[in-house]
Amino acid sequence: MQVELISIGDELLIGQTINTNAAWLGKTFSELGLHVQAAHTIADDETEILSTLSRTVKPGTLVVITGGLGPTKDDITKHTLCTFFGTSLELNQEVLKHVSSFFEKRGRPMLESNIRQADFPKTAEVLHNALGTAPGMWFERDGAIVVSLPGVPYEMKGIIESEVIPRLLKRVDTNPVFYKTVLTQGIGESFLAEKMADWENRLRGEGLSLAYLPSPGQVKLRISSKEGRASESRIDDYMRELGQRLPQYVFGQNLDTLASVIAGICIEKKLTLGTVESCTAGGIAAEITAIPGSSAYFLGGLVTYSNELKSKLAGVNPETIRMHGAVSRETVTEMCENGRKVLETDYCIAVSGVAGPDGGSEINPVGSVWIGIAGPNRTFVRKFVFGDDRSRNIRMTIGAALNVLRCEILGIALDSGRP
Amino acid sequence: MQVELISIGDELLIGQTINTNAAWLGKTFSELGLHVQAAHTIADDETEILSTLSRTVKPGTLVVITGGLGPTKDDITKHTLCTFFGTSLELNQEVLKHVSSFFEKRGRPMLESNIRQADFPKTAEVLHNALGTAPGMWFERDGAIVVSLPGVPYEMKGIIESEVIPRLLKRVDTNPVFYKTVLTQGIGESFLAEKMADWENRLRGEGLSLAYLPSPGQVKLRISSKEGRASESRIDDYMRELGQRLPQYVFGQNLDTLASVIAGICIEKKLTLGTVESCTAGGIAAEITAIPGSSAYFLGGLVTYSNELKSKLAGVNPETIRMHGAVSRETVTEMCENGRKVLETDYCIAVSGVAGPDGGSEINPVGSVWIGIAGPNRTFVRKFVFGDDRSRNIRMTIGAALNVLRCEILGIALDSGRP
Repeated sequence: MQVELISIGDELLIGQTINTNAAWLGKTFSELGLHVQAAHTIADDETEILSTLSRTVKPGTLVVITGGLGPTKDDITKHTLCTFFGTSLELNQEVLKHVSSFFEKRGRPMLESNIRQADFPKTAEVLHNALGTAPGMWFERDGAIVVSLPGVPYEMKGIIESEVIPRLLKRVDTNPVFYKTVLTQGIGESFLAEKMADWENRLRGEGLSLAYLPSPGQVKLRISSKEGRASESRIDDYMRELGQRLPQYVFGQNLDTLASVIAGICIEKKLTLGTVESCTAGGIAAEITAIPGSSAYFLGGLVTYSNELKSKLAGVNPETIRMHGAVSRETVTEMCENGRKVLETDYCIAVSGVAGPDGGSEINPVGSVWIGIAGPNRTFVRKFVFGDDRSRNIRMTIGAALNVLRCEILGIALDSGRP
Repeated sequence: MQVELISIGDELLIGQTINTNAAWLGKTFSELGLHVQAAHTIADDETEILSTLSRTVKPGTLVVITGGLGPTKDDITKHTLCTFFGTSLELNQEVLKHVSSFFEKRGRPMLESNIRQADFPKTAEVLHNALGTAPGMWFERDGAIVVSLPGVPYEMKGIIESEVIPRLLKRVDTNPVFYKTVLTQGIGESFLAEKMADWENRLRGEGLSLAYLPSPGQVKLRISSKEGRASESRIDDYMRELGQRLPQYVFGQNLDTLASVIAGICIEKKLTLGTVESCTAGGIAAEITAIPGSSAYFLGGLVTYSNELKSKLAGVNPETIRMHGAVSRETVTEMCENGRKVLETDYCIAVSGVAGPDGGSEINPVGSVWIGIAGPNRTFVRKFVFGDDRSRNIRMTIGAALNVLRCEILGIALDSGRP
């Protein structure tokens, strides 16, 4: 079964909203072993919707439409689907009951626009929306399935998981492309390819595929096989080899994040963490605590944005800042070492840098960041130079700091040169 | 001129990467007055690329392709474009010179894979890539323009801004749909629609369009007109009316964010800010400091994740936590009032809540958050109840806290009930 994704909404086309639904759906269906053929984003417009349906709805295809089902007046998907399937709307009592109880439970009045959400195509099956008021729709015709869902991500995801997947599993024979992903931090795509050329050639020689997926500071390497799960142990061998050869860059696999890997390490080794942040201003702490249960090892942090607070909260000697500047080895050394004492943690990360666009100097152009890790045995401090873009510099700093922490705890030496 | 966007990459279809390029391009071309017709995401596959090109490349259309141009082996776009346009690759000296100097400047060796990036279609025009090594390509045939760009977002954006837009402006007559957006925080889509039904009816009666764009905690209202900039003052009137009627929800317009609005307020009123964060763990400070120049008013913050650090750093009486719990009016009151003194700021935000998935209780189920603002004249503390999802709860808390701060500084009363 082939999957075609259709996202409806002018807000997507004009870029007011980023289409995260398509990514999530692509991932979900791929993991089920369904092949996602293409994803289309089109306008809230009857002609466009009809022509895209005509092109994509064919035997053996699952078409998943998101968007255009909310309570307000700008939604036309439901009517257009009725036209396409030659049916009409009628008040659906099951849906009405759900909408009413949804509002009742929350102690809020039900509005006329919400009642209209119970108008439902006669020939469609209701996909129950436990998290919202707009139900999903399931149409079938001539071996094609068309599913239409609200565009609000968590409602859409809820319906997919509780209603759509169980129906699909009953009827689809899955023959998945099997893949795993190696995650690297701190090395560019071409350098990685050069360093691992022999590894890549062997891997491709065995009929496995490799894709490089770069994002700021990270490159994901997706190894895939058309032979399904039978290739798993071969792929695992390749992944292990990469991890052993480049432990300073390879931090995890598949759905890992630097924060989740650090979580595992801290829990296993019974370590606690703290942060003293200047240019990232809480971003590192926020990234660490994105992990459920992070309170077991993350105790807290200081956001020392002003120089005065670097001294008052993190005990940096004002003389150090005066002599060497806020963005310096000396200041960051004091930030992490004193932070470790104040926060009473095993490890403390500190960062100070010039995120930009202003504040650059000859010594520290925009993008210069000092990262320090104070631990039980030593303090490690190193300078990184990123680029010109503020938000990118902040993201790069967060990733680099977490990777340096990982290497420090695990006793992995970082390369002296920048790759 | 119609725009069709084509994003190439298996990583997009299987959801390993979220397609932010399409959103950015949609926004950029819409603002130029070009109509973005559709956006397609397809596989790194010659047949798919050729069939999508055949369907979209037609007179009066600008087709913008992103992805499939990196230095590693999984890229096939360049060869497929040669097939489509009946041309072939040759070593382009201009590109080679740029690639060489790119590596020279960074003191890194040039790799064979980078030299291959100078292989360029004979009939295409080079679009200079100042930020990377893969050049963009500009093809023209029979009144259609096809532009192919690397998928790395900042390289792609750089080429669009410096190479593509100047070429377009020379030849395109723009007749834009004019739109502005009102930004609201803290009220749901249907409640907003109900509260403003008369306003919406008048607006639509005048031939303006309205779209509701919900995201966690926020609803954007996009007002658009097909009559171009001539409608601006009418749209402004509607926006002003909405802001006056619902000042507790309407916080800005267009590209504003809560953080940018707060930046403006703090700079104008010469106010300083600090944060004491538990469940958001630095996320509020990071959001505030996403704004360039935020060091003018944001001094710093405390991330008091553990109860011990709530007392040690923010001076919360351990007895308060023992009696009322860490997620309580009393604790958050002490957090923001003491935080204001420790950080020496005019205003201090404090939050403490149960982000989940664990830690919920009868009094404080998952999603319960206390938000407090201590200011020069008073302290305001209020409880919010969000939902079940950890990352959503954190995002909702950040938005709510910034909006409460905005209202406190501006003297706007929040509704007592939850909408």
